[in-house]
Amino acid sequence: MSVRLIESLATTEPLADVFSDRSILRAMLDFEVTLARAEAELKIIPQSAARAIAKAARTEDYDTAKLARQTLRAGTPGIPLVKALRKKVQQEDADAASFVHWGATSQDLADTALVLLLRKAAEIFDADVTRLENALQAFVAKHKNTVMLGRTLLQPAPPVTFGLKAAGWLGSIQRGRARLKSALSEALVLQLGGASGTLAALGNRGVEVGESVARQLNLDYPDAPWHAHRDRLAAVVCACGILTGSLGKMARDISLLMQHEIAEVAESGGSGRGGSSTMPQKHNPIASAITLAAASRVPGLTAMFLSQTVQEHERGVGGWQAEWPTVASVIQATGVALVSMAEAAEGLTVDAARMKENLNATQGTIFAEKAALLLSPKIGREAAHELIERATDPKQLRGRTLSQVLAEMPEIRQYMGKGTLELEDPEGYLGSANEFIRRLSSSVKKPRRGGK
Amino acid sequence: MSVRLIESLATTEPLADVFSDRSILRAMLDFEVTLARAEAELKIIPQSAARAIAKAARTEDYDTAKLARQTLRAGTPGIPLVKALRKKVQQEDADAASFVHWGATSQDLADTALVLLLRKAAEIFDADVTRLENALQAFVAKHKNTVMLGRTLLQPAPPVTFGLKAAGWLGSIQRGRARLKSALSEALVLQLGGASGTLAALGNRGVEVGESVARQLNLDYPDAPWHAHRDRLAAVVCACGILTGSLGKMARDISLLMQHEIAEVAESGGSGRGGSSTMPQKHNPIASAITLAAASRVPGLTAMFLSQTVQEHERGVGGWQAEWPTVASVIQATGVALVSMAEAAEGLTVDAARMKENLNATQGTIFAEKAALLLSPKIGREAAHELIERATDPKQLRGRTLSQVLAEMPEIRQYMGKGTLELEDPEGYLGSANEFIRRLSSSVKKPRRGGK
Amino acid sequence: MSVRLIESLATTEPLADVFSDRSILRAMLDFEVTLARAEAELKIIPQSAARAIAKAARTEDYDTAKLARQTLRAGTPGIPLVKALRKKVQQEDADAASFVHWGATSQDLADTALVLLLRKAAEIFDADVTRLENALQAFVAKHKNTVMLGRTLLQPAPPVTFGLKAAGWLGSIQRGRARLKSALSEALVLQLGGASGTLAALGNRGVEVGESVARQLNLDYPDAPWHAHRDRLAAVVCACGILTGSLGKMARDISLLMQHEIAEVAESGGSGRGGSSTMPQKHNPIASAITLAAASRVPGLTAMFLSQTVQEHERGVGGWQAEWPTVASVIQATGVALVSMAEAAEGLTVDAARMKENLNATQGTIFAEKAALLLSPKIGREAAHELIERATDPKQLRGRTLSQVLAEMPEIRQYMGKGTLELEDPEGYLGSANEFIRRLSSSVKKPRRGGK
Amino acid sequence: MSVRLIESLATTEPLADVFSDRSILRAMLDFEVTLARAEAELKIIPQSAARAIAKAARTEDYDTAKLARQTLRAGTPGIPLVKALRKKVQQEDADAASFVHWGATSQDLADTALVLLLRKAAEIFDADVTRLENALQAFVAKHKNTVMLGRTLLQPAPPVTFGLKAAGWLGSIQRGRARLKSALSEALVLQLGGASGTLAALGNRGVEVGESVARQLNLDYPDAPWHAHRDRLAAVVCACGILTGSLGKMARDISLLMQHEIAEVAESGGSGRGGSSTMPQKHNPIASAITLAAASRVPGLTAMFLSQTVQEHERGVGGWQAEWPTVASVIQATGVALVSMAEAAEGLTVDAARMKENLNATQGTIFAEKAALLLSPKIGREAAHELIERATDPKQLRGRTLSQVLAEMPEIRQYMGKGTLELEDPEGYLGSANEFIRRLSSSVKKPRRGGK
Repeated sequence: MSVRLIESLATTEPLADVFSDRSILRAMLDFEVTLARAEAELKIIPQSAARAIAKAARTEDYDTAKLARQTLRAGTPGIPLVKALRKKVQQEDADAASFVHWGATSQDLADTALVLLLRKAAEIFDADVTRLENALQAFVAKHKNTVMLGRTLLQPAPPVTFGLKAAGWLGSIQRGRARLKSALSEALVLQLGGASGTLAALGNRGVEVGESVARQLNLDYPDAPWHAHRDRLAAVVCACGILTGSLGKMARDISLLMQHEIAEVAESGGSGRGGSSTMPQKHNPIASAITLAAASRVPGLTAMFLSQTVQEHERGVGGWQAEWPTVASVIQATGVALVSMAEAAEGLTVDAARMKENLNATQGTIFAEKAALLLSPKIGREAAHELIERATDPKQLRGRTLSQVLAEMPEIRQYMGKGTLELEDPEGYLGSANEFIRRLSSSVKKPRRGGK
Repeated sequence: MSVRLIESLATTEPLADVFSDRSILRAMLDFEVTLARAEAELKIIPQSAARAIAKAARTEDYDTAKLARQTLRAGTPGIPLVKALRKKVQQEDADAASFVHWGATSQDLADTALVLLLRKAAEIFDADVTRLENALQAFVAKHKNTVMLGRTLLQPAPPVTFGLKAAGWLGSIQRGRARLKSALSEALVLQLGGASGTLAALGNRGVEVGESVARQLNLDYPDAPWHAHRDRLAAVVCACGILTGSLGKMARDISLLMQHEIAEVAESGGSGRGGSSTMPQKHNPIASAITLAAASRVPGLTAMFLSQTVQEHERGVGGWQAEWPTVASVIQATGVALVSMAEAAEGLTVDAARMKENLNATQGTIFAEKAALLLSPKIGREAAHELIERATDPKQLRGRTLSQVLAEMPEIRQYMGKGTLELEDPEGYLGSANEFIRRLSSSVKKPRRGGK
Repeated sequence: MSVRLIESLATTEPLADVFSDRSILRAMLDFEVTLARAEAELKIIPQSAARAIAKAARTEDYDTAKLARQTLRAGTPGIPLVKALRKKVQQEDADAASFVHWGATSQDLADTALVLLLRKAAEIFDADVTRLENALQAFVAKHKNTVMLGRTLLQPAPPVTFGLKAAGWLGSIQRGRARLKSALSEALVLQLGGASGTLAALGNRGVEVGESVARQLNLDYPDAPWHAHRDRLAAVVCACGILTGSLGKMARDISLLMQHEIAEVAESGGSGRGGSSTMPQKHNPIASAITLAAASRVPGLTAMFLSQTVQEHERGVGGWQAEWPTVASVIQATGVALVSMAEAAEGLTVDAARMKENLNATQGTIFAEKAALLLSPKIGREAAHELIERATDPKQLRGRTLSQVLAEMPEIRQYMGKGTLELEDPEGYLGSANEFIRRLSSSVKKPRRGGK
Repeated sequence: MSVRLIESLATTEPLADVFSDRSILRAMLDFEVTLARAEAELKIIPQSAARAIAKAARTEDYDTAKLARQTLRAGTPGIPLVKALRKKVQQEDADAASFVHWGATSQDLADTALVLLLRKAAEIFDADVTRLENALQAFVAKHKNTVMLGRTLLQPAPPVTFGLKAAGWLGSIQRGRARLKSALSEALVLQLGGASGTLAALGNRGVEVGESVARQLNLDYPDAPWHAHRDRLAAVVCACGILTGSLGKMARDISLLMQHEIAEVAESGGSGRGGSSTMPQKHNPIASAITLAAASRVPGLTAMFLSQTVQEHERGVGGWQAEWPTVASVIQATGVALVSMAEAAEGLTVDAARMKENLNATQGTIFAEKAALLLSPKIGREAAHELIERATDPKQLRGRTLSQVLAEMPEIRQYMGKGTLELEDPEGYLGSANEFIRRLSSSVKKPRRGGK
């Protein structure tokens, strides 16, 4: 299934595939086939029924467009799917049809299918986040000593290194990955509860059946069915939201550093990337734009999902029915942001010379803090601050550096002897940057486990 | 294009069509064709070029899947579409290819296409909201005197009528429709600004071209291009959000009134509606569930769009790129809610007898306010309140009505002479209900016009 | 009441005052006093009762901290307030106490109070938005011909003028003001419905009372009570959300233009503005930061309010109880953004020379579109694009301008005769900028009226 | 500091205290005092300076209203606080003033203060969630065998027990608590980075200082400063959002079960709880309403925070400045929901007899699934479904139960011999309910640890 135009900036092809009709259908049929097999093994339904059901579960035999239409009328994909499956089974083995979906409810089917899709998405994420982390690790290693302007509130601040910036991105992405992994480890659990969540139709064998289905689908088995308790899924959605926020921060930084007047980094053009329909010279930060777009959508999607968790009694009216498109959008937004930043990081050009130039262009004013620290003990903080403010006035500077201006101020000269204030030394004013880099880039984030 | 399973509860077929690849492609090509025609009429480009462009604009000649893939790389659908169109034109008339998209930028194309899609959606909305209003007007007329429990905080309150409830729904839906109409009248305007929004490439003829294109597309012409000013679209999104909230309120009410223990109304089952995969007796409020699902998604979508309006300079990086899926989701959510409530209203069964029964089952306690009003002037408010609280205690009532209990209380009997408190008369305790109904259902909402 | 630290970046003092305990108390008491007066005039309650109620309504006699505590237990401020008022009245005139709040319900009181507060806020907004519009009008007039770089996706684009940029901000703010005015004209209506919204306790005189109360409070009288229909308030919240988005866009632009490497505009420092605790030279875009903070909060607040509009039956359980803090936060966020941008606009320094410099620093590459338009008819679009892409490669440019590079390319020279491509003429490549400015800044936005 | 009226339904007093001016001031001063002490111990500043700073840090000496006003101008509370502190220190010891805030930046101060407040809030949460869990455990134990209607989409479904319902609430609250604990364990870390996050002003001793400050404040020390990396805080906000969603689900259930027509549970009235200003008999679900209000606000707040995480470079412009009110609102909403549900659970009356009555009132139709399971193997699924649908038609039932109706249908009678279908046995149709209860209520949720 191909990506549609309307969502072409909001997904990737592999993730669009995960949520395609075929993929959903496959997951739903997998649930039914596995359920029947488990029940047959436990002698709850005939082996022949399980076989007939397995045979009837070829996705290509189903009309997904029709299923979608029926879903709108039924309020759930489970009802038309089970009906269609029963019909196919009937053609094979009339007796077996009664045993389709035995003991389950339509939400069991829909929720377990969703969980299976999430697992597929998680695998895709994993590959992309690894690419991204590797690319960032390389920057950290290479640019540990590449000084550049610190920038706070978009104004110049004392120097940092590009290695530190990359390590900061890396750290938050690693934490985000660990959170997502933890949330998935909670959420990738079977849904099987039957009509009211008690598995009453399976008598006293419900848990036995559930454990077997879970094992065969390679899912964990939860404490209990979770038809109206959506906190585990909410945790996955939130983890995506947080991770995409971290990716958005990285994209914001890149897009700012790519401004023509700054020009410290550049996304690789690559094929079809970053051009303009009218401006041949344009080189746009497309990967960053797409990532920022994702980061602007994910918070609202998270809010949606959270507000949908207030579900009524044993099965909600409204909240549950809203989940599929919400989850699919969150996952796809996260995925397109991940892949975009992976590509951006892999292709990013870093202009260390320009970084130094921009730093120097501040004429030492970014070392005002340093000057204040040097002078305060001598002339007092207030006086030092006041002098430096005066010295950093553009009218004072007129092309000179802060240390030059200060050296000529009589109030200061007396404290300096013959020497000058050694201010403009970015490499020497990096404090604990390298220690922070080391800690950010080496720390192994242990996966956290929550309760099932 | 058919609805996909993942969104099957989140859209209708006609609205999925509006945002289908073909429909988007058609709208984008319409823009290019009209632009060329207008420029040819104004002798800015050759007539032959306009003709060649028109000929090359058959949607069936384009590979939308490929366009979608290229869009992800280009960051906008405009670039690959223009490229593809140029290629087709080239095959017809090599000279004409240079005149494709003359003076425009890719966002002109994408935004105008979006506006054209919104207009199509608005027409669909219009039909559905008319159906819904008509159905509600019929309830208002029929159930003006059908008394039922008022319910505040889900607890019994003095009586209302079902006509008043329906008129309340109607009033807010009418206001919502008027707001949406007003927002659309602002937003359905051409986008044409060229690379930086000055139409520089058209010299001093930009406005002339723009007015002509707008006229031919039957759109209004705005003050100026609005590449990075998205407030008009935001107003449409918000109006959808408010209207869907009103529909959600109606759906919430219906789903509550359909509870088995209340059973005052019922959604029509209809074909494929409201069943269960396991419970043959189930009759679920599916239209309400779908509407509540929409109402739970629209607030987050609105937040998304609003946060995306903070766009940089002459064209945003991230905000704009996020808009298409946001707008498409909002429109489709609104539309599926509208059609669901229209269907629910048209098929709703109202059980007036049950309404009366439920009202009576409160044993007159809902007239406690009335009793307090009658007694307060005689024995003082505090005393009256205190007595009535005592009388409405279930242990006091034991099957009797409030007036019966009160009549036996010595503190009260003295004030009542021989008569009884005429409390339990719901039809006589409706205050201005009918006047409110008249005003809610007759008031014509004049369309409001905003600035262009 | 002073602003608290936790919200010190999220409000202004006048708006914090609007939502202060005293102000809320005043509004609630005004409702009760006016209700009593109207009922006395209509001979529904004794004149003496109305007088006693008016006398007991001195805000300084109430313990608001205690009221707040009781509100949490009662679930509404109306209940403890009415109780406290009755107690005061009782001390004056025991008979009158029974007539306090006659026929009304606690939500009537709370909602009408909220409406009265909104009106006060609207007046504050009005003054600030006028300041802002005036400041922007002045920029438009002064900088109509001040050329600067257009910037799309944060990359250089053909020239615009600072006048056009300011006019764009102005246009969206004017539209936002008109929308807010329209929404307020719908929302500033009395709430008076009694227990179930029928005014049953007032017999057939409910509308008469309501119209009188509305008149005396100088509010419009709506079709009907709107206890569970919150669309009018939602429209106010949304209008604030849209307007704050427009202010956020302006703030984003200013903060970007203030970057050291760009330095085209600067917020006025002003007293206490924009410094740093450690960096004496810092000059931060504080007004923009505060506005962007507001713009980042308002979308989520809007989502909140919209999701709260799904209220049950005649009075909601949860949605209504969440409204006060939501509305107060939206209004205060909007107000602090308005005042910040007004201050920023009034104090903004514009460096036209630097704008020209930054423009020139692109070495004519921003005129690539113009070059393409000039060359395409001669050598074909593809060839022209290809050549220009080659010419704009930084390695080609090496300090020269695009026209110089192009003039030396043999493929082009033949078409140029002796002359040069007149490319680098920003003042001559502004298209319809001045026409757009004229239309944006002159258009009077007529207030729109919606249904009541 | 007392709770204000505007937020009286949105916080509790202890949590309002956490975010009060005094509490914020205390936390900020604690940071400064501890920083100075650590630096003195490490001989970076004089011991006398540390002593003077500690002496000057009495909260009662500061004018918080003035600080709030200055904060709006400075864009951060750190600048005016440091200035005020310096002034006080100056009065004690002029030399010491220079050493105030040595090496730190204003955001270090503000962020560490926020972390300290979060820790205080977490302690309050802990007590309330324990109360809530204990109350739910008691319900689970007591009502393990109390059968009641299952309800899906607000329609009757096969039976559950009240114990299972309570265990479901409990399970999701326990998981929510574990998630919050995990998020807090990541987020309760020191912020200390200096101007650009490198601690440059502390030379090579930054980490040493940081570790000492962290130890003395009993906070963990993170990998690196996190000025523009807000994912840890986002995780706390999200965990609050998820937990409040679970509380909202519980509140929704309670408010629905309290409906007069259902009347299966009741919130305890308690003092000042649940009354009405006009309706003496009213008993409103106030704790549920307040919780639902919180649950309707938290999703939007979460969206806000997530969108604010996209912060620029070394310190954001807008995102950071928006955080305080967002976090304070989330924490307070979570806290008021927790305390409300704790109170509700502790006081909840459960009417087991009414539960049974409501179940019986469905006349066995909720056992239709069971009937289908019994009949399908005999007459085929379709036939069984069809018959049962017929039998559950209200016109068929006319006061009889489903098994009675079925017993009279000739198509079925033949399969039943003399016996009846043993359908209406709720206690015997609970499947694995008790096993699920056991697992939900016993599972100890191990706290998860994430990376620092």
